[in-house]
Amino acid sequence: QETSEKKPTIQLTQTLPKLDRSTEVVVGMYLIDFDDFNEQEESFTLDGYLFLNWRDERLAFNPSQTGGKHKTYNSGQIWTPNVSFLNIEGKREAAYKELKVKPDGTVSYKEKFTGQFNYELDLKEFPFDNQKIQIILTTLDDSKNIIFTVDKTKTGKSQDAFLAGWTIGEEQANVRTIKSDIEEAYFPEFVYEIDVFRYSKPYIWNIILPLLFIIGLSWTVFWSRSFESNTVIATSSLLSAIAFNIVVAEELPKVAYLTFINGFILIVYIFICLVVIYTVVKHRLDLEKQKERSLKIDRVARWLVPVMFAASNIGLLAFFLL
Amino acid sequence: QETSEKKPTIQLTQTLPKLDRSTEVVVGMYLIDFDDFNEQEESFTLDGYLFLNWRDERLAFNPSQTGGKHKTYNSGQIWTPNVSFLNIEGKREAAYKELKVKPDGTVSYKEKFTGQFNYELDLKEFPFDNQKIQIILTTLDDSKNIIFTVDKTKTGKSQDAFLAGWTIGEEQANVRTIKSDIEEAYFPEFVYEIDVFRYSKPYIWNIILPLLFIIGLSWTVFWSRSFESNTVIATSSLLSAIAFNIVVAEELPKVAYLTFINGFILIVYIFICLVVIYTVVKHRLDLEKQKERSLKIDRVARWLVPVMFAASNIGLLAFFLL
Amino acid sequence: QETSEKKPTIQLTQTLPKLDRSTEVVVGMYLIDFDDFNEQEESFTLDGYLFLNWRDERLAFNPSQTGGKHKTYNSGQIWTPNVSFLNIEGKREAAYKELKVKPDGTVSYKEKFTGQFNYELDLKEFPFDNQKIQIILTTLDDSKNIIFTVDKTKTGKSQDAFLAGWTIGEEQANVRTIKSDIEEAYFPEFVYEIDVFRYSKPYIWNIILPLLFIIGLSWTVFWSRSFESNTVIATSSLLSAIAFNIVVAEELPKVAYLTFINGFILIVYIFICLVVIYTVVKHRLDLEKQKERSLKIDRVARWLVPVMFAASNIGLLAFFLL
Amino acid sequence: QETSEKKPTIQLTQTLPKLDRSTEVVVGMYLIDFDDFNEQEESFTLDGYLFLNWRDERLAFNPSQTGGKHKTYNSGQIWTPNVSFLNIEGKREAAYKELKVKPDGTVSYKEKFTGQFNYELDLKEFPFDNQKIQIILTTLDDSKNIIFTVDKTKTGKSQDAFLAGWTIGEEQANVRTIKSDIEEAYFPEFVYEIDVFRYSKPYIWNIILPLLFIIGLSWTVFWSRSFESNTVIATSSLLSAIAFNIVVAEELPKVAYLTFINGFILIVYIFICLVVIYTVVKHRLDLEKQKERSLKIDRVARWLVPVMFAASNIGLLAFFLL
Amino acid sequence: QETSEKKPTIQLTQTLPKLDRSTEVVVGMYLIDFDDFNEQEESFTLDGYLFLNWRDERLAFNPSQTGGKHKTYNSGQIWTPNVSFLNIEGKREAAYKELKVKPDGTVSYKEKFTGQFNYELDLKEFPFDNQKIQIILTTLDDSKNIIFTVDKTKTGKSQDAFLAGWTIGEEQANVRTIKSDIEEAYFPEFVYEIDVFRYSKPYIWNIILPLLFIIGLSWTVFWSRSFESNTVIATSSLLSAIAFNIVVAEELPKVAYLTFINGFILIVYIFICLVVIYTVVKHRLDLEKQKERSLKIDRVARWLVPVMFAASNIGLLAFFLL
Repeated sequence: QETSEKKPTIQLTQTLPKLDRSTEVVVGMYLIDFDDFNEQEESFTLDGYLFLNWRDERLAFNPSQTGGKHKTYNSGQIWTPNVSFLNIEGKREAAYKELKVKPDGTVSYKEKFTGQFNYELDLKEFPFDNQKIQIILTTLDDSKNIIFTVDKTKTGKSQDAFLAGWTIGEEQANVRTIKSDIEEAYFPEFVYEIDVFRYSKPYIWNIILPLLFIIGLSWTVFWSRSFESNTVIATSSLLSAIAFNIVVAEELPKVAYLTFINGFILIVYIFICLVVIYTVVKHRLDLEKQKERSLKIDRVARWLVPVMFAASNIGLLAFFLL
Repeated sequence: QETSEKKPTIQLTQTLPKLDRSTEVVVGMYLIDFDDFNEQEESFTLDGYLFLNWRDERLAFNPSQTGGKHKTYNSGQIWTPNVSFLNIEGKREAAYKELKVKPDGTVSYKEKFTGQFNYELDLKEFPFDNQKIQIILTTLDDSKNIIFTVDKTKTGKSQDAFLAGWTIGEEQANVRTIKSDIEEAYFPEFVYEIDVFRYSKPYIWNIILPLLFIIGLSWTVFWSRSFESNTVIATSSLLSAIAFNIVVAEELPKVAYLTFINGFILIVYIFICLVVIYTVVKHRLDLEKQKERSLKIDRVARWLVPVMFAASNIGLLAFFLL
Repeated sequence: QETSEKKPTIQLTQTLPKLDRSTEVVVGMYLIDFDDFNEQEESFTLDGYLFLNWRDERLAFNPSQTGGKHKTYNSGQIWTPNVSFLNIEGKREAAYKELKVKPDGTVSYKEKFTGQFNYELDLKEFPFDNQKIQIILTTLDDSKNIIFTVDKTKTGKSQDAFLAGWTIGEEQANVRTIKSDIEEAYFPEFVYEIDVFRYSKPYIWNIILPLLFIIGLSWTVFWSRSFESNTVIATSSLLSAIAFNIVVAEELPKVAYLTFINGFILIVYIFICLVVIYTVVKHRLDLEKQKERSLKIDRVARWLVPVMFAASNIGLLAFFLL
Repeated sequence: QETSEKKPTIQLTQTLPKLDRSTEVVVGMYLIDFDDFNEQEESFTLDGYLFLNWRDERLAFNPSQTGGKHKTYNSGQIWTPNVSFLNIEGKREAAYKELKVKPDGTVSYKEKFTGQFNYELDLKEFPFDNQKIQIILTTLDDSKNIIFTVDKTKTGKSQDAFLAGWTIGEEQANVRTIKSDIEEAYFPEFVYEIDVFRYSKPYIWNIILPLLFIIGLSWTVFWSRSFESNTVIATSSLLSAIAFNIVVAEELPKVAYLTFINGFILIVYIFICLVVIYTVVKHRLDLEKQKERSLKIDRVARWLVPVMFAASNIGLLAFFLL
Repeated sequence: QETSEKKPTIQLTQTLPKLDRSTEVVVGMYLIDFDDFNEQEESFTLDGYLFLNWRDERLAFNPSQTGGKHKTYNSGQIWTPNVSFLNIEGKREAAYKELKVKPDGTVSYKEKFTGQFNYELDLKEFPFDNQKIQIILTTLDDSKNIIFTVDKTKTGKSQDAFLAGWTIGEEQANVRTIKSDIEEAYFPEFVYEIDVFRYSKPYIWNIILPLLFIIGLSWTVFWSRSFESNTVIATSSLLSAIAFNIVVAEELPKVAYLTFINGFILIVYIFICLVVIYTVVKHRLDLEKQKERSLKIDRVARWLVPVMFAASNIGLLAFFLL
């Protein structure tokens, strides 16, 4: 929005510090806090500090003349690397920007930003999943002009940062150079990664444990001799499983693969169907006066079905979490 | 928002590069990422690059004098084609804009934009549907003044682009000229199309499979001789089908036609009603001491109803997906 | 936001073209697309073009001197009628504005706008209702200064406009003069109306048809002799009707009158209650060894209740839709 | 955002019209329309006109010299009272502002604004509640400098104003002076109040009537002799009451007191519990071969329980609405 | 956004009042109102006044010359401490800002702000929890340059402030100095804390009381001798408990620990499971002709289970609330 009418200023703000070789920009990123993690839209919002350091010898000054140990500029008065986030939705909002120049021309840029970033979740192990969240900073200038290096001292995360439903793990930062697939250019990228681990306990308490109670309830048909009661139990179990299925389906984004929790619910469905079929078979044996066989299969089912259920879930766990 | 008070500048920024013939604008569009696909409101949000290239000889310069290989301008300092998206909601937000001029006066405009676009979904085949998403770029100037051509090298999509719930297919771009139905003018249009394929698996696991379990459950009445149990089974099946009907109805926008999933749920309803009627008929036969006929229709229904159900669904599949 | 410091400019931009008589502003409005129709908040969002044409002789020029057939101005440089929408929430967002002046001083103003408009829905006939959506444009100036006329050639709607859940009908535009009830002034108004017709089919499939299945299910009690089964059927029917009632109540805004669909659900409730009472009466007759009378009322109810239900609904339809 | 660099202008725009005594500002407020009433967050959004009138003799002019009957200024060019809403969330958005000065220096300020206001609902009588919505305008200046008076001719509400779910009643406006509890100052306040009356009919149809049907259904246990049926009826009634309880709880904000509807649902719960206990007692009497007593309590309960229910609700109505 | 082109102005606005020692900034914060408390995202929005007072001797003036008792400046004209909130999402929105300077150079800054703040809820005792909401103000300048002190007279909260669902308690403010973990600097912090107490009554009425009714309902199986009825009662109880579990799970953010309400629901689940197991055991005793033992355990369970349930809940209360 600033238009500099005077030519010389344009030159200063719009040309690179070094015309003959690339300028090294030292990048630091510090996570202040997560604001939101929208799993349905697969995006997260966070606040952070962005630190950029580079040397612009045209700005060097003699501290004894100006009195201060550093000079402060407004954004737009001097050249700054035109950085932007690659995986951001829209553009970042800057709460404030600070530009300080030391006598030798070293420029320190500090910005507090907020942005919403796209991130494709890997939910295969949901609700026992970890995610490696990425923020990618790039620049409009070719890597012939600008190269990034990581400022390890200014890269990190706040101890107060938290994300509802997740534990925040270690962060990591590195730089790389990527060939653009639309322009004849190589662009530098700064990648900030942070591990987050989902709280799986709420899903255990609110989904898995109730479903285990329901499955347990459905197994009472192996002790009961009343077909009417068994029907009520089996249909109630199915209705309950459906309720939890709907809750889980509404919480997760649509993904192309089967998640752990969907696998678990599928096993629950299959075992409830088994119970329904078992109930009808027992009913027919009773109708056909084969009470002996009916009592016999009851005795077997009482331990076989729970064992099969446990085995299925161990198999599921092994398949997903190993 | 910039007002240039000096007359000559106005001339430069507000008149076309060629007054006597049309200016050719080479348009490229590159999809960075989808942010959101709101099916209820039938709109999607995406981030992309917009590339415009044209020649403005008034801006040609001698590189040996100015030192650089290209000049950089701010938006508003020179003439730019006044483009806008036709099917956007509100206006696009630009994360950044870059204007570079080569010595021969070729101007390269690069913009990172975010916009929310209207798109009428064709949900007939839901949840097995594909959509051909369209973004239409047009200009305020008549095609006598501006013509569009496609810049194939700068049109594409990022390998990292993803859309929750969809697979992204091939993109396509072409240009056309449309007669305005309100003004005496022909406007150029640049159309960017991209195919997206819905992940149907979550709907199979979360809707279709549970409904198949429910239908299967309802068929146990063909083996049972207890009217009370059969009533419980039939009413539970109906309640379950209603639960899924409500879930599906809340997920989709209201459309004027029957979708595949609604057709499937309708078949499920009809077959559950059949089961209810069958149950009552069997009960009456038993009441009227016609146990023979009652057992006979049981034997027939056990294979006839599943076959009919399969046939109905094959018919439905044939009707919708062929 | 533009402040013109020079007096003459103020005069030009802030005084009316004709000080002695009213300026005629020819208004055209063209619907590009609907973005959203929020029925709960009774508001809709749309994109459109606003065309204003008037004559300002102070801007007349000699085309042979300036070279172009028309002059282009920025908004704020010349006088423009200060129009605003009366029923808008907040203010309209303009995607772009264009101001062209012909040699005779005729000014053409074209604006692409987006706005959210309040509209009180008439839902009596829901889900078979039509709505007459209104957008009212007015001006800050008294009708002594500005009068509106309709520009029929520039008033219309795009063939591509769509609104999720509605068919778009004919549009209409007219002008009127309204006496302000707060100021001693008459203000001109331009009214753009467009008919929209609700897709009733999704409601038939997702609400009415399932409720008819439920009512049909509840009538099986007229064939059954088991009080236990009849109780299960009647209570399941009531639970299902409640589920649909809750779905409908969440979809509609709270209105002071009974809608068609509420009337229908009320009839369903009443008939399910009838079935419950009928079931208990039949149970008591059986208890009191009056099996003859019990069988007799069964035979009557089998055709009487469906006929009564059909009659009630025909009455409802007649009351609401005629 | 406007910075006037010249000293005299600062004086004119930033000093009060009368330095020695307070300036009287005549305030008018006119409700155009409500946009939204968010009961969960206890806030409402509305559009309105704000009228301010005061006399600034420094702006008096001779109409014969300037030609017009009044002068128009941009906001920022002259002194305006720095008013703001006390109970607004964030700040108000102004769709337009108009500043007119008459020859005697009387300034008329007209603004169309939109704002979201906090309002603590009193839901004790819900859904038969009325609310007295308040908007409070105050100023940054002490009442020694500025005093408010009500402009009755410009205070009112539009006939077209509506609020989904509410009838709009009478508005009222008055002024008062409040001692600040943080600064040594007395600030003038202009209070605009408007009564709104909730549409209670949707709650009667969608919540109260279905619950009455459910209660009525539960009373069939007084006629039935089947314990199994009675159990089904009682548990279904409880499930239905729970469904409505959840719907009501999701609609209302959390309040520290019992609302009428919660009281009603509580009575429904208690009576369904009574029915359950009654059912078990009757079952035990039947088990203990005391059929005479069992039939006797049935005869009493048939009229006693409905009478008790009616009495409880009359008591509830008396307690809440009187 | 303001660019001061003249060097001296830059000096005045961008250098600290005292170059040799730290400037004391007296901070006051006053809560006007809460706008929203989003528990799912663990953030709250509020409006408040921010008061800053400091002395800038460069601005001292002689009141007899300028006529007024204080001078008013626009933000950007003089130096102001660059404060920002540490735990804010994005940046604060200022409804207005006021800068007054007294003759001795004391500057009073008053701002009405709105901001959304992150806050990690401690929900262990939910719904009987209290929260200590924190707002932390910091500055870009090192504590060598700026130190904060609390302005107790201007720190407080409005009597009209309310927060839907919470009682507002006492506020507290203090200052501290924090070592940055990314920069070699100590930053001053001003911490405003306010206690809020949740309204637990809506949760008692809408969740805990219905669950107690359900548990009570499930205990009727100790009086009944019908296995079919007992099955219906037990499964209905489980379905009801699931409904409330889903409601609670949707209301709370995912947390890594068990909340009080989750503990309560867990106890309810366990007791309903006990009832189911009890029912089947009694059924088997009846089948095995051990009616004596069956009647005996009924007599014991009638008082033992309620006592165990009460004991469990007292234990839960003791564990969580003590």
